[in-house]
Amino acid sequence: MREPLPTEMRASVLRQAGEVVVENRPVPVPASDEVLVRVGSVGICGSDVHYFKEGRIGDFVVESPLVLGHEAGGVIVAVGADVDPARVGERVSIEPQRPSPTSKQTMSGAYNLCPHMEFYATPPIDGAFAEYVTIQSHFAFAVPENISDDAAALMEPLSVGIAAARKAGITAGSRVLVTGAGPIGIIALQVARAFGATEVIVSDLDAERRAQALAFGADRVLDAIADDAELRGLGMDVLLECSGATPAVRAGLEALAPAGVAVLVGMGADEIALPIPLIQNRELVVTGIFRYNNTWPTAIDLVRTGRVDLDGLVTGGFGLDEVEAALLASTASTSLKTMIRPGNGA
Amino acid sequence: MREPLPTEMRASVLRQAGEVVVENRPVPVPASDEVLVRVGSVGICGSDVHYFKEGRIGDFVVESPLVLGHEAGGVIVAVGADVDPARVGERVSIEPQRPSPTSKQTMSGAYNLCPHMEFYATPPIDGAFAEYVTIQSHFAFAVPENISDDAAALMEPLSVGIAAARKAGITAGSRVLVTGAGPIGIIALQVARAFGATEVIVSDLDAERRAQALAFGADRVLDAIADDAELRGLGMDVLLECSGATPAVRAGLEALAPAGVAVLVGMGADEIALPIPLIQNRELVVTGIFRYNNTWPTAIDLVRTGRVDLDGLVTGGFGLDEVEAALLASTASTSLKTMIRPGNGA
Amino acid sequence: MREPLPTEMRASVLRQAGEVVVENRPVPVPASDEVLVRVGSVGICGSDVHYFKEGRIGDFVVESPLVLGHEAGGVIVAVGADVDPARVGERVSIEPQRPSPTSKQTMSGAYNLCPHMEFYATPPIDGAFAEYVTIQSHFAFAVPENISDDAAALMEPLSVGIAAARKAGITAGSRVLVTGAGPIGIIALQVARAFGATEVIVSDLDAERRAQALAFGADRVLDAIADDAELRGLGMDVLLECSGATPAVRAGLEALAPAGVAVLVGMGADEIALPIPLIQNRELVVTGIFRYNNTWPTAIDLVRTGRVDLDGLVTGGFGLDEVEAALLASTASTSLKTMIRPGNGA
Amino acid sequence: MREPLPTEMRASVLRQAGEVVVENRPVPVPASDEVLVRVGSVGICGSDVHYFKEGRIGDFVVESPLVLGHEAGGVIVAVGADVDPARVGERVSIEPQRPSPTSKQTMSGAYNLCPHMEFYATPPIDGAFAEYVTIQSHFAFAVPENISDDAAALMEPLSVGIAAARKAGITAGSRVLVTGAGPIGIIALQVARAFGATEVIVSDLDAERRAQALAFGADRVLDAIADDAELRGLGMDVLLECSGATPAVRAGLEALAPAGVAVLVGMGADEIALPIPLIQNRELVVTGIFRYNNTWPTAIDLVRTGRVDLDGLVTGGFGLDEVEAALLASTASTSLKTMIRPGNGA
Repeated sequence: MREPLPTEMRASVLRQAGEVVVENRPVPVPASDEVLVRVGSVGICGSDVHYFKEGRIGDFVVESPLVLGHEAGGVIVAVGADVDPARVGERVSIEPQRPSPTSKQTMSGAYNLCPHMEFYATPPIDGAFAEYVTIQSHFAFAVPENISDDAAALMEPLSVGIAAARKAGITAGSRVLVTGAGPIGIIALQVARAFGATEVIVSDLDAERRAQALAFGADRVLDAIADDAELRGLGMDVLLECSGATPAVRAGLEALAPAGVAVLVGMGADEIALPIPLIQNRELVVTGIFRYNNTWPTAIDLVRTGRVDLDGLVTGGFGLDEVEAALLASTASTSLKTMIRPGNGA
Repeated sequence: MREPLPTEMRASVLRQAGEVVVENRPVPVPASDEVLVRVGSVGICGSDVHYFKEGRIGDFVVESPLVLGHEAGGVIVAVGADVDPARVGERVSIEPQRPSPTSKQTMSGAYNLCPHMEFYATPPIDGAFAEYVTIQSHFAFAVPENISDDAAALMEPLSVGIAAARKAGITAGSRVLVTGAGPIGIIALQVARAFGATEVIVSDLDAERRAQALAFGADRVLDAIADDAELRGLGMDVLLECSGATPAVRAGLEALAPAGVAVLVGMGADEIALPIPLIQNRELVVTGIFRYNNTWPTAIDLVRTGRVDLDGLVTGGFGLDEVEAALLASTASTSLKTMIRPGNGA
Repeated sequence: MREPLPTEMRASVLRQAGEVVVENRPVPVPASDEVLVRVGSVGICGSDVHYFKEGRIGDFVVESPLVLGHEAGGVIVAVGADVDPARVGERVSIEPQRPSPTSKQTMSGAYNLCPHMEFYATPPIDGAFAEYVTIQSHFAFAVPENISDDAAALMEPLSVGIAAARKAGITAGSRVLVTGAGPIGIIALQVARAFGATEVIVSDLDAERRAQALAFGADRVLDAIADDAELRGLGMDVLLECSGATPAVRAGLEALAPAGVAVLVGMGADEIALPIPLIQNRELVVTGIFRYNNTWPTAIDLVRTGRVDLDGLVTGGFGLDEVEAALLASTASTSLKTMIRPGNGA
Repeated sequence: MREPLPTEMRASVLRQAGEVVVENRPVPVPASDEVLVRVGSVGICGSDVHYFKEGRIGDFVVESPLVLGHEAGGVIVAVGADVDPARVGERVSIEPQRPSPTSKQTMSGAYNLCPHMEFYATPPIDGAFAEYVTIQSHFAFAVPENISDDAAALMEPLSVGIAAARKAGITAGSRVLVTGAGPIGIIALQVARAFGATEVIVSDLDAERRAQALAFGADRVLDAIADDAELRGLGMDVLLECSGATPAVRAGLEALAPAGVAVLVGMGADEIALPIPLIQNRELVVTGIFRYNNTWPTAIDLVRTGRVDLDGLVTGGFGLDEVEAALLASTASTSLKTMIRPGNGA
């Protein structure tokens, strides 16, 4: 440890739905296989907003005070007993998972499906809207100098895009439809390109979001309502559904060519009526992703080499004491990613 | 050609919904790449019954007289100009497809998805409820002596099961749930075993069908209603949905473990409400099959080596002049496969 | 712990090449995530014989006394602090690996390729020719009553066969050539069947071994020399090379059809001249396996359901004080698997 | 047909090894499923040079006069009876294959492995060093205006690169080593990038070729001799071996990480001694490609969208009467692709 560490830190705590306050908390002590990271930047995800507004997501209920935030980057300031002390000072991106190392799923490489998972900002596990966090050493990935703290944080949503592209089997020459041009849609668009897609079409209801998609390199954009008929006839290889909207899911399936693959990324209704004969007659594959596994090295490579632009997604930055404002700002249609920077205005 | 062929033959013709009659028709002349097959046996499929009762299946409408039947075996009695004359006398199983050889789908091996497909007993293409049929030479597969005419015919539904098992990725050690113990379910059960599944559970509403599933080697059977809660908790690797029933599709998805694969084989409702968060959180794969491709050699191998029993499926045999009775008999719950044998009682 | 455990045990120790003696050693104490297993049976592998005779295998050199044996089954007699005490009394098969839980390979499911692997009976890690061994709890797999101690031990070589069959993509209808009818060849033959192969041909130089292959279900056997020309023309889908013999590798590749897959399982020469134009023109895939990963549940299922017979492989059993005799017996051409049973004649 | 076609054309004919002359030949007449193409440009491949110098490649012997050239683009000037006449005037790239439509390999999508293949410039099938050629309509692929005649011709070697990248499973984040910086190596480098590789290292013996690799976007280049030790330690995911040189094959295998894939593209020695324990211990996959299948649409997409530069490969252009000079020019180490342009100086 090269710097004297404080014993207390500031953390933004969700006490209950609608109430988020800054509290002083002890700086966590890294366990033997962990590192302590001084958080540089944390992205706000739709799930953070959902917990803030509703106090729950599905079966996960905020029953005691919870620190939100799971898209985090920063610098290692201390290490546990079994970690190489040379890591202190390293700038890192955090993969905010903690699977059991011995579950069947983990042993087969699909650790994201581990039933014993602990995950940042998912009750009762605290997240990263705080000055310091701990993470297992192998889930803190070094980032090079040309990657900003914001980009280090946004490796997390980028990993969602990479997981989706892998599941979809996107490769050179693929034709990809992205439905929904929010932050995940814009990332999915870029990831599809990075996997070799030679045509990426993006649909959204909102003209500003469509314009953003064009700015981030979409070949074409479609108005999800006005261009519905055209969209359904596209005959694409892959659908990356990033809106969660029921009509987008349904139209997106029709937009697929025989043997097309639909990856449902966006979260929405608990049930959606799907056209089974269409799935059968075209042998469509419909699947979803649950977070990601083994994506960080690729995510960092794609950003380092300029294939994916994460900094361009950032539409706002706030301090730890502005989390409520930040959560609200993140829901604007012009917003892509709003960042919490715990070091700001401390 | 070793035997003098008649110029006329008997064929069972569906004139309109509900009306099927025997007509005299010219014996077809094989084109240069075709063989002429004297039909020994034809299985009745649910789609034959559906055309008979409704006069249509989806967009396919019986607008002119149609010969039904697409599960056929027999013996080659004549060949086209470009076919080896030594094939005359060969006992064969017919793959009743005719894709375009140059479509994108055919070129990539998925000829079943060829948009220019012509298929037996699908308007306006005649099927095999007749004394003679033609088929392209490479779609007439030689069967060895230990395979009966009935079994030769039933390579077609067996191919459905093989296509489903391949799509599902069934392999040694797989745990498979088959929903629906009709003929396709019983075939799926046997195919799952032949692909190495070490546990196959079959569910059905009907006690007699469940008993049949046990007789054909199911490890366990479940009552789709009474055992619903148990079924949903099974945690299987694969669902082969063979009932088409909406509740079976929905319960079957819940019965899957993380990363499970559901292949929807049975035909039923045009739309089914599916639990999207379940698909996402478990990363389930939901897909369907449309007929089959490149299955016949495997089908014949599985029957030849005794891994799949097709003769045991036959619950009735009728002549060409009994097609209406046969169609009705095939819908009984105790019926598995009802065969038309055109040579009977001619 | 239900039974009083001794503090000392007997172990067979390889002091140097050619010298193996029984020593008293402390009974190992399970670490917090481990179980202590009273060894019921251990199979002798060719690598054990090689260490005994040569004192090394490649870069692995026996520099201090080493306990051999890595194919082990037994019963749990004590557990570490973090393991469910209810496991005491459980009969288990041991997967004798200890990968790092955080290496890139382990995280992606290929833990067998982990560069930090510790493996039984590989210097300097002791193996299982002893009365007691420890293993991480999740690598001790419960076996049902119908699986013997010998079979529990032989899950290890069975896992080699399963890893090979998976790598080869064997499925229903595959045509498989197994070269070499020693213990691994006989297991490979059975595994190929269990994965759905409908034709399995086995070649060996030795008539007795060929007879054994037939007894274990080979469709045909070939004399590797006398039938060489026929073998090269077989046109198989898969080669499981289990002899390590250079001529078998070369003839086996020629025996493959276009797009065939060769898995090199047997160990032999450091270099083999391969026909590159053949690999290119037929797009053959040539690969090997290094131990196994995620095979035990399948291995146990295959034996439990009778698809693979391991007990039939056992051609001899010896006590701990007879290890040298056992090692020598295991090299006879009539021998398949020779077992050490530490509880015998103690 | 929009233009009056001549009945005679000029063709460059290889009469025997070392003797190539221009002859007048009848303009071929397209069969019913063919188009007639006026050749705009044809690339010279190493195999053309080999036939010219040796009169044979392996089992393929030039026993009667042969027109060389199989990398061709041009414009459709006439069509067969079954082809849409609207195709006349279309600029196309030719896939120079003619598989049997009914072989097992073709039916499963691997038509390149069809045993009945007829291929341009492979005895006794004539190639494209001529003013006009015929090709089946579906193997003449329309190219957009922004693709030159040279680039249309070079879709053929680009297809080799695509086939190799697919076989290797290159995807976003892959680390790829290309050995040999000749024309195929430079194409492989570009294709690896287009498939998402984030690090591509190229090795060659020749400094000029290494400089070309850097100019085409290699991250690093290595001297195959001076940097040998570094190369062997690279730990890459994929080897695309494009030199055919025995030392490159062997060093390239050592350069792979565990689970790495080697695709042997370059042609060289009939046998190469490979390190079998290395293949086993790292579970390397060693395979080759034989031409390509289903690559043209992707090839055209990659060039159309600027991901691959083919025009930059062209280092010389010759008329039909200069074929001998062109063949010799193509072997210079500074040469990448030498083109024959039949319309030049006619």
